[in-house]
Amino acid sequence: METTADYCIGIDLGGTSIKMGLFEISGKLLDKWNIDTNKAENGKNILSDIISSLNLQLCKLKIEPSKIKGIGIGIPGPVTGDGFVPVSVNLGWVNVPVKEQLKLLTDIPVKVGNDAKVAALGEMWQGSGKGYKNLVMITLGTGIGGGVIIDEKIVPGFYGAAGEIGHMPINQDELESCNCGKKGCLEQEASATGIVREAKKLLERATFKSLLDNEKNLTAYKVFEAAKAGDLLANQVIERAAKYLGIAMACITGVIDPDVFILGGGVSEAGQILLDQVKKYYKENVLFLSKETQIKLAALKNDAGIYGAARMVLE
Amino acid sequence: METTADYCIGIDLGGTSIKMGLFEISGKLLDKWNIDTNKAENGKNILSDIISSLNLQLCKLKIEPSKIKGIGIGIPGPVTGDGFVPVSVNLGWVNVPVKEQLKLLTDIPVKVGNDAKVAALGEMWQGSGKGYKNLVMITLGTGIGGGVIIDEKIVPGFYGAAGEIGHMPINQDELESCNCGKKGCLEQEASATGIVREAKKLLERATFKSLLDNEKNLTAYKVFEAAKAGDLLANQVIERAAKYLGIAMACITGVIDPDVFILGGGVSEAGQILLDQVKKYYKENVLFLSKETQIKLAALKNDAGIYGAARMVLE
Repeated sequence: METTADYCIGIDLGGTSIKMGLFEISGKLLDKWNIDTNKAENGKNILSDIISSLNLQLCKLKIEPSKIKGIGIGIPGPVTGDGFVPVSVNLGWVNVPVKEQLKLLTDIPVKVGNDAKVAALGEMWQGSGKGYKNLVMITLGTGIGGGVIIDEKIVPGFYGAAGEIGHMPINQDELESCNCGKKGCLEQEASATGIVREAKKLLERATFKSLLDNEKNLTAYKVFEAAKAGDLLANQVIERAAKYLGIAMACITGVIDPDVFILGGGVSEAGQILLDQVKKYYKENVLFLSKETQIKLAALKNDAGIYGAARMVLE
Repeated sequence: METTADYCIGIDLGGTSIKMGLFEISGKLLDKWNIDTNKAENGKNILSDIISSLNLQLCKLKIEPSKIKGIGIGIPGPVTGDGFVPVSVNLGWVNVPVKEQLKLLTDIPVKVGNDAKVAALGEMWQGSGKGYKNLVMITLGTGIGGGVIIDEKIVPGFYGAAGEIGHMPINQDELESCNCGKKGCLEQEASATGIVREAKKLLERATFKSLLDNEKNLTAYKVFEAAKAGDLLANQVIERAAKYLGIAMACITGVIDPDVFILGGGVSEAGQILLDQVKKYYKENVLFLSKETQIKLAALKNDAGIYGAARMVLE
């Protein structure tokens, strides 16, 4: 006899911890919990840890596995079509057939995706992108990642490299090299790392005082705090990062003209001060037709991954 | 009684002539013909001219209209969701509900799209993009247009501006203004107009001889001919255009990582000499994952529009 599948599971598999969430099909988060990521022996127990924890939790909550429509899982690394992960540095994985291995551990259907792309889907489902079908999420952290959603579906890219916003060649005058080996990637100019680099550069040659003078352990967070307090140098740093972000976003619009941009990740927590500058430079650089594109801050923060993973199940 | 629809019609509506094609559902072009575009009185007779010509042709060929699955039509201008054209400068149109008006003129179902986007779909169906589901076509002419196909469907964009590759902000050092009002658009650097502009600039200040010296009526075609003959200055001009094209394409890959790029339009007829340079600069600027993306010249030339228009009917 067929039972209705009322729930779905979203899992955000990170290098330190694994976030898991139980959702109603409607998008309501009912329960969430974490387990540690066991990276011993190249992370060979990670998948069985996940299923053990899931079974235990379902048992506690008195939910039959047959009521679960599927398990979605976001992985920190590239994922090919069939749920195969060629490499995940953060997990110590090489050539792990995630979907295939999970099939041996559970009868519940599984979907696997890249974590940044999955987070974009989460924001579309229940975050700042709710109500939109085409969006680009830009995750501003130590690096810059992204996810592109067209027609409510993740765009994976031929080589799995769609949404690699951080490596768009944006600054042709850049002299230093990016981690990827190229020069002038967006990530160099607008990531947390890039913001700190630029602040240090300006501090070295500044002829005026800054709240950041004598700061030994400079972080992007401190730059934003100084900017909010009115510091001139910190504001110059943020304006420069916003300029390159605005240019990159105008380029993105030239390709897919999305309904909305969503800015997430640690750097985006700077909030309005960053958003205002990004909007200014986006408008300056984009074709007039698209000047009013919505640009929003992410809403789901650290939960975007579990939301998006659960949403994959409903595709 | 239901009859099988065996054919579809593709129409490429241009400012000078209207190209029309009769296709088998399989993609085989059976017949094509042209009529002139009558722009008198803001082009108010264009749509009835089209249907008259179509009816006449079907009658000549002894094909029942019930055998036609649909008519697709590509328009030089933006097209909103419901087949509405707010403006088409080339046709003299303002606020023309194309789909609605055609419904009054024929019982055959109609689909309407922007001409550059439709051409991209044509190349996917029966041109250089055959066998691929995700592609970007870049049309290099007086300006630069484009079309983006994801999952075998045209990406229209929220403001109809997806594929406006020509206005991606690519050169931050550009001092002159683009027709759109911005500075540093790809179109300024790599269109036929941009190529002529750069050639003139170099000719003015060149300290060495060129085949293009004393050329009164300089065209992009002449620049390419000189380059093929080994002219140093002409080759510098082409290398510069290819550099900006390569950078723009690397940016596009950062967004959607397409299966293949297709270069069309008059400038692309330069062929291998352009293609080789574009590939070089694409590889230099793109993230390592996607260095081997296919880059091809368009195959359907002036017929891409009728192919793509007919293919819209099958979506």
